[in-house]
Amino acid sequence: MSNADAYRVRREPFYQAQDNEVAHYEAAYAARLPVMLKGPTGCGKSRFVEYMAWKLGKPLITVACNEDMTAADLVGRFLLDASGTHWQDGPLTLAARLGAICYLDEIVEARQDTLVVIHPLTDHRRTLPLDKKGEQVEAHADFQLVISYNPGYQSLMKDLKQSTKQRFTAFQFDYPEAALEVGIICQETAVDRNISEKLVEIAQAGRRLKGHGLDEGISTRLVVNAAALIGQGVAPADACRMAMVRPITDDADVIDTLDHAISAVFG
Amino acid sequence: MSNADAYRVRREPFYQAQDNEVAHYEAAYAARLPVMLKGPTGCGKSRFVEYMAWKLGKPLITVACNEDMTAADLVGRFLLDASGTHWQDGPLTLAARLGAICYLDEIVEARQDTLVVIHPLTDHRRTLPLDKKGEQVEAHADFQLVISYNPGYQSLMKDLKQSTKQRFTAFQFDYPEAALEVGIICQETAVDRNISEKLVEIAQAGRRLKGHGLDEGISTRLVVNAAALIGQGVAPADACRMAMVRPITDDADVIDTLDHAISAVFG
Amino acid sequence: MSNADAYRVRREPFYQAQDNEVAHYEAAYAARLPVMLKGPTGCGKSRFVEYMAWKLGKPLITVACNEDMTAADLVGRFLLDASGTHWQDGPLTLAARLGAICYLDEIVEARQDTLVVIHPLTDHRRTLPLDKKGEQVEAHADFQLVISYNPGYQSLMKDLKQSTKQRFTAFQFDYPEAALEVGIICQETAVDRNISEKLVEIAQAGRRLKGHGLDEGISTRLVVNAAALIGQGVAPADACRMAMVRPITDDADVIDTLDHAISAVFG
Amino acid sequence: MSNADAYRVRREPFYQAQDNEVAHYEAAYAARLPVMLKGPTGCGKSRFVEYMAWKLGKPLITVACNEDMTAADLVGRFLLDASGTHWQDGPLTLAARLGAICYLDEIVEARQDTLVVIHPLTDHRRTLPLDKKGEQVEAHADFQLVISYNPGYQSLMKDLKQSTKQRFTAFQFDYPEAALEVGIICQETAVDRNISEKLVEIAQAGRRLKGHGLDEGISTRLVVNAAALIGQGVAPADACRMAMVRPITDDADVIDTLDHAISAVFG
Amino acid sequence: MSNADAYRVRREPFYQAQDNEVAHYEAAYAARLPVMLKGPTGCGKSRFVEYMAWKLGKPLITVACNEDMTAADLVGRFLLDASGTHWQDGPLTLAARLGAICYLDEIVEARQDTLVVIHPLTDHRRTLPLDKKGEQVEAHADFQLVISYNPGYQSLMKDLKQSTKQRFTAFQFDYPEAALEVGIICQETAVDRNISEKLVEIAQAGRRLKGHGLDEGISTRLVVNAAALIGQGVAPADACRMAMVRPITDDADVIDTLDHAISAVFG
Amino acid sequence: MSNADAYRVRREPFYQAQDNEVAHYEAAYAARLPVMLKGPTGCGKSRFVEYMAWKLGKPLITVACNEDMTAADLVGRFLLDASGTHWQDGPLTLAARLGAICYLDEIVEARQDTLVVIHPLTDHRRTLPLDKKGEQVEAHADFQLVISYNPGYQSLMKDLKQSTKQRFTAFQFDYPEAALEVGIICQETAVDRNISEKLVEIAQAGRRLKGHGLDEGISTRLVVNAAALIGQGVAPADACRMAMVRPITDDADVIDTLDHAISAVFG
Repeated sequence: MSNADAYRVRREPFYQAQDNEVAHYEAAYAARLPVMLKGPTGCGKSRFVEYMAWKLGKPLITVACNEDMTAADLVGRFLLDASGTHWQDGPLTLAARLGAICYLDEIVEARQDTLVVIHPLTDHRRTLPLDKKGEQVEAHADFQLVISYNPGYQSLMKDLKQSTKQRFTAFQFDYPEAALEVGIICQETAVDRNISEKLVEIAQAGRRLKGHGLDEGISTRLVVNAAALIGQGVAPADACRMAMVRPITDDADVIDTLDHAISAVFG
Repeated sequence: MSNADAYRVRREPFYQAQDNEVAHYEAAYAARLPVMLKGPTGCGKSRFVEYMAWKLGKPLITVACNEDMTAADLVGRFLLDASGTHWQDGPLTLAARLGAICYLDEIVEARQDTLVVIHPLTDHRRTLPLDKKGEQVEAHADFQLVISYNPGYQSLMKDLKQSTKQRFTAFQFDYPEAALEVGIICQETAVDRNISEKLVEIAQAGRRLKGHGLDEGISTRLVVNAAALIGQGVAPADACRMAMVRPITDDADVIDTLDHAISAVFG
Repeated sequence: MSNADAYRVRREPFYQAQDNEVAHYEAAYAARLPVMLKGPTGCGKSRFVEYMAWKLGKPLITVACNEDMTAADLVGRFLLDASGTHWQDGPLTLAARLGAICYLDEIVEARQDTLVVIHPLTDHRRTLPLDKKGEQVEAHADFQLVISYNPGYQSLMKDLKQSTKQRFTAFQFDYPEAALEVGIICQETAVDRNISEKLVEIAQAGRRLKGHGLDEGISTRLVVNAAALIGQGVAPADACRMAMVRPITDDADVIDTLDHAISAVFG
Repeated sequence: MSNADAYRVRREPFYQAQDNEVAHYEAAYAARLPVMLKGPTGCGKSRFVEYMAWKLGKPLITVACNEDMTAADLVGRFLLDASGTHWQDGPLTLAARLGAICYLDEIVEARQDTLVVIHPLTDHRRTLPLDKKGEQVEAHADFQLVISYNPGYQSLMKDLKQSTKQRFTAFQFDYPEAALEVGIICQETAVDRNISEKLVEIAQAGRRLKGHGLDEGISTRLVVNAAALIGQGVAPADACRMAMVRPITDDADVIDTLDHAISAVFG
Repeated sequence: MSNADAYRVRREPFYQAQDNEVAHYEAAYAARLPVMLKGPTGCGKSRFVEYMAWKLGKPLITVACNEDMTAADLVGRFLLDASGTHWQDGPLTLAARLGAICYLDEIVEARQDTLVVIHPLTDHRRTLPLDKKGEQVEAHADFQLVISYNPGYQSLMKDLKQSTKQRFTAFQFDYPEAALEVGIICQETAVDRNISEKLVEIAQAGRRLKGHGLDEGISTRLVVNAAALIGQGVAPADACRMAMVRPITDDADVIDTLDHAISAVFG
Repeated sequence: MSNADAYRVRREPFYQAQDNEVAHYEAAYAARLPVMLKGPTGCGKSRFVEYMAWKLGKPLITVACNEDMTAADLVGRFLLDASGTHWQDGPLTLAARLGAICYLDEIVEARQDTLVVIHPLTDHRRTLPLDKKGEQVEAHADFQLVISYNPGYQSLMKDLKQSTKQRFTAFQFDYPEAALEVGIICQETAVDRNISEKLVEIAQAGRRLKGHGLDEGISTRLVVNAAALIGQGVAPADACRMAMVRPITDDADVIDTLDHAISAVFG
């Protein structure tokens, strides 16, 4: 089915394994268990699933979940055209037909009640009833569902329901160890190892403020952004302030603390 | 009516009876009483109704209820096509016409007010008025309505209304006894009895935490998932942590307690 | 008008009068007063109106009210077809034209503001303005409006408005006296008088728990269900537990109390 | 314009003046001032405006306000037909064009923000801008707006806005004096003066309970209903209980008090 | 552009200047600054803008804001016709194209988030992006935006956002001085100066109750209404009660106080 | 692609740099990092992005965010025409295709959940999935996303989510230093340096009231408005009261304080 090609990951994404998560994912995929990726913002969950899709050679269909997402946005709907209405598959249905990995990114954003549509796809039935079309889609043998989830969020009210959770196998992610993170920064940007180590040092100072003024730590993505600005000629301290501090907080005390840390490192 | 065949359960589902629920269901079906399946997530309610539909040789139409579900999603609606509008039956109407068992899964998710549409189908009238179409559907003699319901949920506000509840005959489900559960694990996956017993031991440890840090116990489904990962070569302790602990809690203390139990059993 | 025939009650419904409600209803109908049926779930309100429609030889149009019901669901709307839009009467408009009894079941579920559309039909005007169509429907001389209402509900916020209430003549219903209820059970199912008496004894025990753990009593409908299960060979105590206890409560203490009562009676 | 005839009041409605409200209304109409009718449920506001429309020989267009009413329901909307869309005037626009009296019944039910559309029609501008159509309707010289309003309601949040209120001239209504009410009952139904006096006596007992268990008094409409039931052969005490007590309260104490009053009068 | 003529103010509106607001408005218009008219209900804000539009010879497009108003209601939308969809400008877009004064009346009623569409029209950009149509409308050189706003309202939650407020030049209005108001009453109605002075005396008594039982004072519009009733032959005291007291309060004490004031003046 | 020309900034906007923000922006653009502009209302954020678009020679597509904005408003939707439906790109999709700078103004107004659609465009993927169309748009190499954000707002509930924030590089803006602001006023309006200094003096007095009666300071835009009124002949003190005080507060004390400051400066 040539449609599947449109969703293939063409180049190997840069992914630095932290543990045996690659082997574990391969086992979960072999058993076609639904997978849940847990961890803070910007620690590499999306890139991991992209990498695994590339490694397994399966198409990847990503859905950025949001609160307005209805079951129809996942499953499909009737559209009107010149000769009446025709059905258009949603991304979940498409993935089930093509045998793709369907990745529901930031699933806690979705209305949990909408998510009940994934239930029959994630147990022994592996079917997707299209009630509005009167069709039962049997999932392709290669189909797998993956969701991501940030447990640090305060949106307790939107927590996943037990009947949804109790279908998944979980992978826990966190910020990489210092040495690993330094290597990632060097590999993704043009900065040298010395600068990279200093940036990671600042990031770790910031992460220690989590729960003490910051809701979340400074993600690896922001460290990469700071390095990219430095690569464009911005002074390192300015780059840190622009990329790693101001985007994540408006609190004058926290900004002050982090600015001092930056001055201490780069001053 | 050949449409009914599309909804027949083709293979005998694996179902291990726990008590005389099969005979009781046959009695309820013989009297065409509406049935309510009560019990925690993942204890086999959906599989039971699938098994009974297979045993009775009746088509089964399943609806995963959600909060956005309107009466029209159950009953049907007018769709536009090239020559104007035509009516399309919803799953409940279809079941009433075909003489299917209509299974409303996780009914507490639905807006209870929407559910009043099932009332005339579930008393002596056994009719479904399609107000928008101006038709009264007389239910086929084989039609039966089944709902499932998890009383452990906290969503008290969405509890079923008395006028809905007082139409049903209830079947109470729970996690299977240890010996029974061990047998189920062995039968559904490739693991040996010794591994299976250890997995059930851990599951039971987790179930004792219900109300003491866990909202729900560890379902049989998750135990089966852990066994499946072991079958794919994942180390048993890793498999338990991935399949039976991390998906259901983010609480560091609870995770710790369960990880210790896992180490004690598999260490 | 042949349409009316579709809504005629074809067979005499089984109805056991409790008092002089039949004569009173005939008087209210003769004066074409709108009628309000008050009483708990499952005590026979719907069957009474069905019986009266049969006795008076008038068509009966029933609407199960729900919170999503809009004025258009009662009154009608424009539908699109190949040659543009055409108007389709809703059930209230149809009843007004045909001279039917229009029965709004469980009216407290409806948004009370939607219900203002019934006002001009229920005073000296007896007209229904179809604002969207620009038509004033004069009600047929035989038209009457009946509503049902369960005052036991806690949904105070959805209570009927004074300007709606002050149009109706009320009939108060309750569970039948023991002897009457025993007779109803015998007549509706195959069980003998002795079983029937025991079932009613248990129902009355349950009704005494109303306000002490139960929101509503055990309805006659549930007693009939228990008798039907017994008729299918289920042991009487099991039948009572399935049909009269588990559907209406999840409270372990209440279940215990009632199970003891069942054991005492059938043990 | 022949359309206006469809809205003319054909027969003189029975209306018993209580004071000089008829002359006052004629003055307000002569100055084309918008009119507000204030008073409790069922005291004759709707009939008064019907009577005045008949007396002045003007068409009357009544809108029963409800919470779902949008500005488009008052003003009009585009409808789709075979040759595209065409505009359909709403009742307010129609009244402005025809020179009718437009009566917005129970205006507090409407979303007050929707009501801002009446503002340009109710000051010196006397125009109605149809924004969606790009047309400014100049009101016909005979057009007048009348609203009704029950100040006894508790729905403070939905109270009229100052900018809406400060456009109207108010008429205050209340239940008629006893002698007047007795006459109204006799004239509207077949009962004799003695029965009528007793009914009014009971109604007045009930009205004294307003604020002491009853939200509103017993309206004249309900007294007429009781008289109508008596005219159909219902025993007077039964008729009072059915028509004047049970429709307006579920409170056992209040029912008891009123039942005693009924027994005292008719016993 | 002949369309503009439809929105021209044809006759000079009666407007009695209170201060140098006319010259100030001319300066604001010359600089094309957006204007905010602040003041209580019925003090002449709408008439002032009408007067200025007449004086400046510019078309005036008025929008009565309400809570249901969407950005599309201001900006425009696609409508369906026989040959597909066509775009229809909303009143704001029309005003920007024609070079009209666009008057958003009672802007606090609008959802403030909807109002962000006016931002690019009210700063140096003077453009209106029609996102749905993919067009950027450059405002006509004569275009100006005017909003009105009643700061006395309690609807704090709906207060204007800073980013909206900080675009406007404000004109503060209040009830006219007594002598001025007497003159306005005489000029607008047929009553003599003596009656007019007495009416203003009562109005001022009422205005002193603002914050002491009344949410707003008695507006000049209501005084004019009372005078109009007197001109139709209603007794002055009755006219004051009908036009100046009952429309604005249901509070028995406040009514009493004002009725006494009326008796004192006209008794 | 000629479409891009429609979005080019034709004339150099007047922009007075405050620090090295121009060079920093050029670095961020060179690295194609998403940019966040932080700062109070009216301090020049929108003008800065306009200036940078002009300087870089890139098209600029601005979206004024609001609470009703759905993902479809950003991404696009199917529209109906004579031959069925066709897809119309939203402004974000258009910017991604054309290689424009897409500027989401006042992003905190948008429902944060809607904003998840920007996520795949703002990390290494630089793609925009059009789920409804089944297309993946690869962003043009020139595409960049810019958002603005006022941290002074109290709408904490609508604060940006971490997973959105942690994608941006932040630029902090504030009111310009006095000397700079004086120069801006002179350059934008016809007033002389002496008047301009006095206006800035008053503005700074107002800014000191932030948090002490004022939610926000007096923006540079309002100072420019006051200068423009003076240029049209309004007395300076009147111009300050109209342009810098009344638009931003209804608090009598604050108005008094500021009026005194104005009198002291211009008296």
